Amino acid sequence: MDVLAGIHCPEDLRRLSTAELETLAQEIREFLIEHVAATGGHLGPNLGVVELSIALHRVFDSPREPIIFDTSHQSYVHKILTGRAEKFESLRQKGGLSGYTSRSESEHDWTESSHASAALSYADGLSKAKVLQGRAKDNVIAVVGDGALTGGMCWEALNNIAADQHRNVVIVVNDNGRSYAPTIGGFAENLAQLRMQPVYDSVMEHGKNTLNNMGWVGRRTFEALHAFKEGVKSTVLPGEMFPELGMKYVGPVDGHDLEAVEEALTYAHDFSGPIIVHVVTEKGRGFAPAEADTAELMHTTGVIDPVTGEPKTTAEPGWTPVFSDELVAIAEERKDVIAITAAMAGPTGLLPFKDRFPDRFFDVGIAEQHAVTSAAGLALGGMKPVVALYSTFLNRAIDQLIMDVGLIRQPVTLVLDRAGITGNDGASHNGIWDISLTSVIPGMRIAAPRDGQQLKELLREAVAFEEGPSVVRFPKGSVPADTPAQRRYADGVDVLAHIPSPGEDEGALKVLLIGTGTFSVNLADIADDIAHEGVEVTVIDPRWICPIPDTVVDLARAHDLVITAEDGMIHGGFGSLVSETLSEHGIDVPRRSLGFPAIYPDHASRGEMLADLGLDSAGMKKRILAWIKDLA
Amino acid sequence: MDVLAGIHCPEDLRRLSTAELETLAQEIREFLIEHVAATGGHLGPNLGVVELSIALHRVFDSPREPIIFDTSHQSYVHKILTGRAEKFESLRQKGGLSGYTSRSESEHDWTESSHASAALSYADGLSKAKVLQGRAKDNVIAVVGDGALTGGMCWEALNNIAADQHRNVVIVVNDNGRSYAPTIGGFAENLAQLRMQPVYDSVMEHGKNTLNNMGWVGRRTFEALHAFKEGVKSTVLPGEMFPELGMKYVGPVDGHDLEAVEEALTYAHDFSGPIIVHVVTEKGRGFAPAEADTAELMHTTGVIDPVTGEPKTTAEPGWTPVFSDELVAIAEERKDVIAITAAMAGPTGLLPFKDRFPDRFFDVGIAEQHAVTSAAGLALGGMKPVVALYSTFLNRAIDQLIMDVGLIRQPVTLVLDRAGITGNDGASHNGIWDISLTSVIPGMRIAAPRDGQQLKELLREAVAFEEGPSVVRFPKGSVPADTPAQRRYADGVDVLAHIPSPGEDEGALKVLLIGTGTFSVNLADIADDIAHEGVEVTVIDPRWICPIPDTVVDLARAHDLVITAEDGMIHGGFGSLVSETLSEHGIDVPRRSLGFPAIYPDHASRGEMLADLGLDSAGMKKRILAWIKDLA
Repeated sequence: MDVLAGIHCPEDLRRLSTAELETLAQEIREFLIEHVAATGGHLGPNLGVVELSIALHRVFDSPREPIIFDTSHQSYVHKILTGRAEKFESLRQKGGLSGYTSRSESEHDWTESSHASAALSYADGLSKAKVLQGRAKDNVIAVVGDGALTGGMCWEALNNIAADQHRNVVIVVNDNGRSYAPTIGGFAENLAQLRMQPVYDSVMEHGKNTLNNMGWVGRRTFEALHAFKEGVKSTVLPGEMFPELGMKYVGPVDGHDLEAVEEALTYAHDFSGPIIVHVVTEKGRGFAPAEADTAELMHTTGVIDPVTGEPKTTAEPGWTPVFSDELVAIAEERKDVIAITAAMAGPTGLLPFKDRFPDRFFDVGIAEQHAVTSAAGLALGGMKPVVALYSTFLNRAIDQLIMDVGLIRQPVTLVLDRAGITGNDGASHNGIWDISLTSVIPGMRIAAPRDGQQLKELLREAVAFEEGPSVVRFPKGSVPADTPAQRRYADGVDVLAHIPSPGEDEGALKVLLIGTGTFSVNLADIADDIAHEGVEVTVIDPRWICPIPDTVVDLARAHDLVITAEDGMIHGGFGSLVSETLSEHGIDVPRRSLGFPAIYPDHASRGEMLADLGLDSAGMKKRILAWIKDLA
Repeated sequence: MDVLAGIHCPEDLRRLSTAELETLAQEIREFLIEHVAATGGHLGPNLGVVELSIALHRVFDSPREPIIFDTSHQSYVHKILTGRAEKFESLRQKGGLSGYTSRSESEHDWTESSHASAALSYADGLSKAKVLQGRAKDNVIAVVGDGALTGGMCWEALNNIAADQHRNVVIVVNDNGRSYAPTIGGFAENLAQLRMQPVYDSVMEHGKNTLNNMGWVGRRTFEALHAFKEGVKSTVLPGEMFPELGMKYVGPVDGHDLEAVEEALTYAHDFSGPIIVHVVTEKGRGFAPAEADTAELMHTTGVIDPVTGEPKTTAEPGWTPVFSDELVAIAEERKDVIAITAAMAGPTGLLPFKDRFPDRFFDVGIAEQHAVTSAAGLALGGMKPVVALYSTFLNRAIDQLIMDVGLIRQPVTLVLDRAGITGNDGASHNGIWDISLTSVIPGMRIAAPRDGQQLKELLREAVAFEEGPSVVRFPKGSVPADTPAQRRYADGVDVLAHIPSPGEDEGALKVLLIGTGTFSVNLADIADDIAHEGVEVTVIDPRWICPIPDTVVDLARAHDLVITAEDGMIHGGFGSLVSETLSEHGIDVPRRSLGFPAIYPDHASRGEMLADLGLDSAGMKKRILAWIKDLA
């Protein structure tokens, strides 16, 4: 790591010779494999952008010229080049380096969200600010994957960027033919065509050699080449990216040819006006196990062996496979069941469905808005669509749920994986908003299974519901053992525990604990300890948490204190629904809420975060006992 | 209206001669002008699609072949042609015809939302259902404006539609060069280029004449022409729509040449696979006052004179101009203030800002996602962006607010016009979601002015807030006279009324009434009547309704009943914020909420809806008194 050791900021890159740069790229790949194998993280995407990241920091003057990484899980190399190499041992750990760009880490980091397709909009705004502040010559660079270009935000931004030919926005399309999964859609096919242009490539190569022989070098070469390309374009280019926008286009460039990338970026740097640089890269480049993982190219990994790529920790059985198997079972019985994913068939467990029912499976790309509204269209056509998403990404389609699904009461089932606190992926991956956001939809039903058995039952109930949309949400991580109910009410509410006060004191405070999903099991686990303090405790799992079942209202009326616990945001969440429903019924029993406060959490493991927020069993017990003490 | 009188369903159209069809078009225009002048409604858009709507219903077999109108405010002609002409006297009135497609009105209506850019996604889903049900030959038609194509959802849908060349999706682009305002962006420039192709048009005309002389007619003509066009395309077509998607394209076609439109649609009808039909229309066509209204082409009108187009009712001074003037005043003082609109500069009051500060004004198209995230980019670049939207359209950008603005605490100010119940525009225009949706964002501040003076004050406070995003929301309609406060607390909470119980009874129930915006004034108006029932009443306007000011908590602690009233949805709204905050502080005072229940309301006037929901002064008084009686 001799060369890498000398890199502390982007300026250090500019002193390196071509040979040193090649060595640096090699060292960075070794560094990435070694460190990400030890911590887990986004290995594949970062191995793909080693040369691109080096070239970006040699050509552009960050942070004066902002570089915005779309999703930013591909910013590890950028972090290494901006002085953060030594912090990689703490990657994604509590208090350590974020897995995404982070404004508190570096002035070279501008954004923090990991949701795709937003970088071009940020760049559009930043470049407008540059013009207004008399710094129009500064470039603003957005690095966006071809997968993210399937998201509508990119189109909105491109339309605006192209409208003003005086702003220096450089759009670097990092084209590896994939998002998480291979990129889909008509546009992807066009990109593939662009990518594989033997004629054009050989023309470029030929022109380069010719010009090089004439003594032209570096960026001058590229300028001449580009002029040359303009002349031959109509005969050798099968198409361009976004010609209808009238935007300048350079490419495709081999993203692992450092010199070629740098030439293209230098041309873009000096070009006046918006420009697209099309860079073709290979996800997982240089790590054999990633290159061999044709399904996902090691998009993201846990702790792995740095040589074989084999996982070092054995994952416990998770929620996702339970959903995966049950959906296939339901679809065997019902031919109208359709599965939809937004570029995440693997992570959401839809691959078995896709294999079994290829005609009834649709990957719409990173396009949650379209996922939801096209599901409404399928429902209008008589089908029964199931849209499987990570909870956090449903935030992109709230309007579509309200207006395109809910308003016309279409039976679309949303299955939200990673609902609740997720942990190491940082603030923007937490699924803490879905209850608050989807419960504003009139007619919406929301289920939160506490275990695998309940997930199966509730998924079936959701798919059978014909009157409108429904949500089934479950968390990240391993699925706990089944917790049988002591009793099930007719409206589906389960009693998990009922513990009289010690000594059967008639006047003892009666406490009703209501938990969503696994939180109901956690409450049942601490019920004895709480009753021990001299109160009567009942623990219920409503299963359907929106609308509030009548049984919850009836039970609340018969208690002296109602405490809700949910794996989501307090405001507008399950506790609020309970409280609003009780007020509506004129029931003024005191209530308290356990859940996520109005903060953006730092990254840490799910367990660490729950403990920090007082939402693990110990924390919940402590807070519940304090509330009881206050009331007694 | 001889021809029109004979049209009761689409089949009736197929019997008409060319001459009768021309007469029908003329009669429909007269009918539209007469009826919309009397009721108000979307006049300009419907005058533009008379021939297109006739041709659609002659060529396609609705409802077997679904026709989805994007936004659907241009569905009046469709309604006339599907048996609803006699109901037009009740257009947009309570219990009458909806101003949009409505599933309860007709089997020819599929969707109900008026939010733009969703039709292609619906069509994608419907066509997938057709294929799965063995009805792949049926066409699914989406009619979308060029303005709506600036919305990202369209791009997501096009990418999916183009990916499967076996589905019969017909995308009719109704290109009038406008949304509400002229369509913006690089794409619009390309469309304009496409539209004005004298060479291509004369080639088409020439070919048509030649072929007609050879005895070809009707749709056969078009097929031959199309083949001809394919041959000449490369020399005469300056570009196509979405060539990178590889989708078939027909056009541009003169949208007021009935025969030409029908030929193009017939070609599309018979074409196997997805196809775009580009129809050029004139908004407001055939009504001189609309054609002369170059700013908005009478997109929407109130009650007008059917000859002169002059408004018949005098509008009272509204909220929008107060915002409009104050923003210009602020921008005179602060050079960093930027205004952003999503294709609605006129309706949101930004035209004076645009005129005064053209460099600091940005219309991003119908692209709320981009409006919000590019605002974050401007803020990152040191500017102070103000995004002016209708409340209902902010629903499109909730993820962007959470992830792109809130997470990195950028000082973006959102000004939401038409917040609360709007009325005649139907369910999807009501601004009842914004409090619930924006209050989930950590660090978000929300202001609700009760009058013009407060709007000015709160707008200034919002723009001065540097720590994160803020919302200023105000309703549709006229702005009431200013209501001075009896007292203002240090945290900005205003006391509007404080009325001791009659007889100054020490033991009287103490009632705290808290209203958002104008609702606080309504509460103050009924305070005397309520106190008269033997209780002490205090009415406050918190002005900043999120987060809950400390004064609200302190006052609630000293009262026996807390009632909130808000012009928005109860669930997750202001009342919930109050209730959650009180629970958090261990305050168990009974609380009740007045606001919008979990329903989608039918259209009616704002006044009628408030009365129906018990949210006018009389209704609120009645419910408050009942609650007091229950507690006493």
